[in-house]
Amino acid sequence: MVEKLRRPRRTLIRTQVHKLCQEAAPRLLSSFQPQLIIAIGGGGYVPARILRSFLKQPGSPNIPIQAIGLSLYEELPVAEPSNSSTGSVDKMGTKVTRTQWLDFTSLGEMKNLVGKRILIVDEVDDTRTTLEYAVKELEKDVEQVRQKLGHEGEKTQFSIFVLHNKDKKKKGTLPPDMMAESRYVAARTVGDEWICYPWEAIDIDEHDELARRQRQAGQNGSSSS
Amino acid sequence: MVEKLRRPRRTLIRTQVHKLCQEAAPRLLSSFQPQLIIAIGGGGYVPARILRSFLKQPGSPNIPIQAIGLSLYEELPVAEPSNSSTGSVDKMGTKVTRTQWLDFTSLGEMKNLVGKRILIVDEVDDTRTTLEYAVKELEKDVEQVRQKLGHEGEKTQFSIFVLHNKDKKKKGTLPPDMMAESRYVAARTVGDEWICYPWEAIDIDEHDELARRQRQAGQNGSSSS
Repeated sequence: MVEKLRRPRRTLIRTQVHKLCQEAAPRLLSSFQPQLIIAIGGGGYVPARILRSFLKQPGSPNIPIQAIGLSLYEELPVAEPSNSSTGSVDKMGTKVTRTQWLDFTSLGEMKNLVGKRILIVDEVDDTRTTLEYAVKELEKDVEQVRQKLGHEGEKTQFSIFVLHNKDKKKKGTLPPDMMAESRYVAARTVGDEWICYPWEAIDIDEHDELARRQRQAGQNGSSSS
Repeated sequence: MVEKLRRPRRTLIRTQVHKLCQEAAPRLLSSFQPQLIIAIGGGGYVPARILRSFLKQPGSPNIPIQAIGLSLYEELPVAEPSNSSTGSVDKMGTKVTRTQWLDFTSLGEMKNLVGKRILIVDEVDDTRTTLEYAVKELEKDVEQVRQKLGHEGEKTQFSIFVLHNKDKKKKGTLPPDMMAESRYVAARTVGDEWICYPWEAIDIDEHDELARRQRQAGQNGSSSS
């Protein structure tokens, strides 16, 4: 908390979140055409739901959303090896815990994911630890099923959408081909600021007022990636 | 669509959604004290995420959210019996399809649900079909695990939060004890209107302007339950 208070603060109103999704949707549709959204909860729930409205094509059904829950705990550096069987990865002093994973039953034992274009949605790419975990674990799960099914050519493609990417040294890494412009979309690239999303606000009027004042002062800038 | 256009229309801005959650939180905390939120996606994602901010108690961790995905298809009346093994219930011409269910692995095979107070969150109680399905299936799953574990006294309690309950003839039913004031919380009771939630809006400025005009005209009234 002390560290947060020292850092610059960016406050967003919901209209801004909405517009960041709206702005990104045509890019996502032209470059990637997602067939399934995986929302990383809690922060990814709201952008994923808004984004779905903009990705909807006339005459086509809504793109389904699967939610996964990942919690990131910063810990002291540990020497333990990665242990994905328990659903956690210990690395460089960070630990991701699964609070929810895909529901394989409704997904037809992952068969529905094989060969699909899947968009992973979160609110922010901060240390990249959570995104690294999500991509690695999802790719592993899908690859296992693909091999079992013997579907040779059908490669599942993942891409990422975040509202904000923080321009900072990342702890997690993504596969190089996922960093292509068509597969990694951040609506805005910002500094290492503390971002206040509207769904975290307790006093929403105060929150909106602060966001408006920041906007007028040009602080919630237009740097985009 | 034609039917929707004929019906009165209620347009909400995000601040209103936020305030409905804020207003309900003290009631939920005093009467029910939820330990887990189950969000029915896609409509329940946003209120569940906002509500969690208001349910957070100083010194306690966030209440975990599990997302489930249910789609409601209106169909012609069918004579098929309820068939929950395939994840669908056919009844009175309505069909609920699971697009996602609880992740039993992360939940410790449902053990974590036994004896807990669980709040089910959706945006609207319209025909009640989806809520009936969610409650029935969740109660069944939890009861099975409880019996298996032999935890005699530990009864799991479910409650419901929706932003809006439509005052209309319902197709689905809930257990009578779930309709108690402490276990069924609708932030607002409204007529059989078409409700436009902000996360469904394509033009958010137009949406907000319409909501503001309705508010000024007193149409997004204050009837509460």
